[in-house]
Amino acid sequence: MTSVQDLNDLVVPIRDDLTSGAAEIALRAITVFQTMLAGSESLSPDEVRQRLIDTARALTEAQPAMAPLFHLGNSVLQATSQAKTVAEIHEHCNQALSAFEKRLCQSAAVIADLVYDLIPPGELIFAYSFSSTVVSCLLNARSRGKFFRVVSSEARPSMEGRKLASTLASGNIEVMHTFDTAIGLVLPNCRAAFMGCDCVARPGVVNKVGSWLLAVACRELGIPLYALSGTEKFVVDERLFEFERHERPGEEVWSEAPSGVRVLNRQFELVPFSLMAGLVTDEGILQEKDIEKFVSKLDVHEALKLENAGFA
Amino acid sequence: MTSVQDLNDLVVPIRDDLTSGAAEIALRAITVFQTMLAGSESLSPDEVRQRLIDTARALTEAQPAMAPLFHLGNSVLQATSQAKTVAEIHEHCNQALSAFEKRLCQSAAVIADLVYDLIPPGELIFAYSFSSTVVSCLLNARSRGKFFRVVSSEARPSMEGRKLASTLASGNIEVMHTFDTAIGLVLPNCRAAFMGCDCVARPGVVNKVGSWLLAVACRELGIPLYALSGTEKFVVDERLFEFERHERPGEEVWSEAPSGVRVLNRQFELVPFSLMAGLVTDEGILQEKDIEKFVSKLDVHEALKLENAGFA
Repeated sequence: MTSVQDLNDLVVPIRDDLTSGAAEIALRAITVFQTMLAGSESLSPDEVRQRLIDTARALTEAQPAMAPLFHLGNSVLQATSQAKTVAEIHEHCNQALSAFEKRLCQSAAVIADLVYDLIPPGELIFAYSFSSTVVSCLLNARSRGKFFRVVSSEARPSMEGRKLASTLASGNIEVMHTFDTAIGLVLPNCRAAFMGCDCVARPGVVNKVGSWLLAVACRELGIPLYALSGTEKFVVDERLFEFERHERPGEEVWSEAPSGVRVLNRQFELVPFSLMAGLVTDEGILQEKDIEKFVSKLDVHEALKLENAGFA
Repeated sequence: MTSVQDLNDLVVPIRDDLTSGAAEIALRAITVFQTMLAGSESLSPDEVRQRLIDTARALTEAQPAMAPLFHLGNSVLQATSQAKTVAEIHEHCNQALSAFEKRLCQSAAVIADLVYDLIPPGELIFAYSFSSTVVSCLLNARSRGKFFRVVSSEARPSMEGRKLASTLASGNIEVMHTFDTAIGLVLPNCRAAFMGCDCVARPGVVNKVGSWLLAVACRELGIPLYALSGTEKFVVDERLFEFERHERPGEEVWSEAPSGVRVLNRQFELVPFSLMAGLVTDEGILQEKDIEKFVSKLDVHEALKLENAGFA
């Protein structure tokens, strides 16, 4: 039987994954729910439901900036809240997991079609950090015959920009790679810039730290910057700021910092809509004014409401 | 007797020093001239002069972005051009070296006085990369009793920002340190920003890559950014762009980049005056309009003129 200890073991790799995008991690979190569900036949319906609540909270807590983890848990809890038997809970949970996976894949396909038209043929474009959505869109455009070259940067301290560069190069896209501060040297030659996104609400888009600097530089140079995001990343405003709780150990940045030097290691930041050309979603290319109608209809299960979740 | 091989041995450490500022490296270059001069008594005056020309060219070539190396060589060549005997060349060369060292130290002292008044008491300030001028100004202000805290960032790929942080901390200044892309998270809390400078001409200031991003971010946030620079860093416009010839091996950024990924490693960039609050020099705090009168009177020895120097 799967225990609390097992849940922790399943969640740790997700918490410590600093190089994968939010959509990719959400797909892996589906497996965590499946594992926690397996072997729960001997429990009472309320015990199974509690297990799902614990799983949803643990996943949301593991990566507080990544909205798809919250929505995945929220869908599961809402789908199973009225189920009467353990078998019914299993059925509804599996349906919710399948529906969520299907939604992620479908939204990626719609976004890829929109991005295809945004890539200027034959030109250099910039791609920041690592986003499975950005990668799949660029590989899709290349495989459909569009030629372009990509500039990427490291994305210190986790260096997931190298993962982006390697993945694009293996898909037959020519990549120029440099360190993050050299963005100012390469960006003037780019005609468009793309980044992923972890979370969207009225105040803007939360993404890997460095996105704000990129956005300010793009606006200064007149280069359109697009954030790519399925609507499964939309949240109510209060949840948006959950990313501020995500702080990693300073030792990951500088393991031997001398005394008197405090090392800050925060990995997400907010980019306001005013600095971007648009948010490319499965509902089209959205601007700030379009966000309201998506976030106002979000229903949150009681167990995941911020005031009930035990998050300080 | 010192040979061509020896010159190369003396210059290599200067060429490969990616963590020291221009003023600091110029002080070390004085020793290179002294070493090349020692043991040259048996040569003819023209042979000694040629040796000084070779030394000046090699040093300028080693760090093409660092104007003080050029000016040091230029002073030596101009001071010795009319000397008739080897003894006279030695005398004039040593006088030029002493005068240059004295000028560097005096300009650092004047700049430190100006910076003292620019540091808002009790506030957080940002300091970028490593500049001996910035370090000595901040340590001087602290030792004179002004309290403030400093935020610094790594300055990938050479990480000389760590050297800055360590040096300031050892001088009893509280430092908060983070990676370069996190500038956007810490800068909003800063009240002023300071950086060094390698070279100044009419188009702007050349400094370590990342300075342009910092400058754009500072302007966006309304934070005054000051570049600190002795007037020994002023050059004619054509020499300013010599920094573009400074390219380091991509392996220093990513040693195992896959095929299909080209790694760019350029370390300097231009920041226009429009993005800065001022250039703090030994002649006061200057703006763009003030630069003209300093650069128009610069005399360049024939051997160091770009069209004669064999630089292509």
